[in-house]
Amino acid sequence: MRYKIIFSYNGKGYCGWQMQKNKPTIQAELNEVLSQVLNMSINVTASGRTDTDVSAIEQVGHFDFDGIMPKNVVGYVNSLLTSNISVSSITEQNGFHARYDAKEKTYSYKFYIAPVKNAVFDQFAYHVKGNVNVENMLASIKYLVGEHDFSAFCATNTQVVDKVRTIYNSELRRDGNLFTFTITGNGFLYNMVRIIVGTIIMIGLKGESPSIMKKIILSKDRTKAGKTVPAYPLVLRNVKYNN
Amino acid sequence: MRYKIIFSYNGKGYCGWQMQKNKPTIQAELNEVLSQVLNMSINVTASGRTDTDVSAIEQVGHFDFDGIMPKNVVGYVNSLLTSNISVSSITEQNGFHARYDAKEKTYSYKFYIAPVKNAVFDQFAYHVKGNVNVENMLASIKYLVGEHDFSAFCATNTQVVDKVRTIYNSELRRDGNLFTFTITGNGFLYNMVRIIVGTIIMIGLKGESPSIMKKIILSKDRTKAGKTVPAYPLVLRNVKYNN
Repeated sequence: MRYKIIFSYNGKGYCGWQMQKNKPTIQAELNEVLSQVLNMSINVTASGRTDTDVSAIEQVGHFDFDGIMPKNVVGYVNSLLTSNISVSSITEQNGFHARYDAKEKTYSYKFYIAPVKNAVFDQFAYHVKGNVNVENMLASIKYLVGEHDFSAFCATNTQVVDKVRTIYNSELRRDGNLFTFTITGNGFLYNMVRIIVGTIIMIGLKGESPSIMKKIILSKDRTKAGKTVPAYPLVLRNVKYNN
Repeated sequence: MRYKIIFSYNGKGYCGWQMQKNKPTIQAELNEVLSQVLNMSINVTASGRTDTDVSAIEQVGHFDFDGIMPKNVVGYVNSLLTSNISVSSITEQNGFHARYDAKEKTYSYKFYIAPVKNAVFDQFAYHVKGNVNVENMLASIKYLVGEHDFSAFCATNTQVVDKVRTIYNSELRRDGNLFTFTITGNGFLYNMVRIIVGTIIMIGLKGESPSIMKKIILSKDRTKAGKTVPAYPLVLRNVKYNN
């Protein structure tokens, strides 16, 4: 039997989603608790990996289990997980594959602009010093939408060959000096969201024309884009499927 | 010489602002570092106390110091503070009193509505289980604006006699199942924001008519209002002064 599992995690202090020998990972903790509750070795496949320190509001996975599923499995699992991980549902879904069936993912990233760090914002947002041109930042993100080769926004050490992805929506919301960037696409390359955010910030700091975002995409040149901003403010918001 | 100091703090794990013997407080840590940097016993008076676990994005205080203020005092102080507190400015301001001169304060409080806790939201928002009537919650907050006797929204163990306060603005913003309540007023009674939020949630859960908020205010009866929600999602956003 195949089960779909929806869960959240605070990734701070974890070495990302994927199991690694002798390192704390979300997958390791979740597998261990599920295996304990179901009394069988369980391995959860997620919609995709997340990096060290990255969190997820609504991550989706699947696992196989042929025994009898306890009625209050969610409550039982949550009582054994640390407060960093929480399962919201486990439902039978034949043929479901969390990675192959994923149609859309949404990520968000928070940053704030201030001469000195703020102890509250620093917990969940990246600190940018200096003067930025906010209008240019806000206007630059529309160029991301559509089907593009995002080679310029991909870590250079990646093995992926096809770097074409489709972005359905991108939004930069301002709340005082705190900014939330939200992006939805059919998939993301390694470090793609973090490099996009680094590029938005670069445009703001240098006062570049918003359309430089388009030029950077077309260049397919990683060195033209901004730096890779830190991982901890990155949050996987949700994953969408056809059903 | 009187100095105005603007600072932020992550209040989690602190026993609030005010100094207490053998307890970690924001005031104790800030006083200690300022005294060390300025080589003289310094005592910061804040715009008001905040409770255990409450954070501040922009708290304002004042202190007196008659020596020569080092030029890079802010950087020096921040290098000695833990990452939970950060000073953004220290400026000379004759006659300034952080508490008496405060004209407006803005607080915010986040909560989320979900059957199961979310590991990301739980870090900064209060978890509400159950079905809520969102429209009624959103409509209820307009009754808070204006000058009212807020006795119904004040902890019963308070010594304050005059419970009339003026609310200039109240806003409840929805982002999926995450809600941010923001309120601005000329002052707040003990636990007032937390009881107001508890009342908004009560209205949502019970599907009460929004105008019950007005009836609760007029009742001046603490037992008519909702419960006091937990402190940790409460954040003092800023304090305004005439100058």
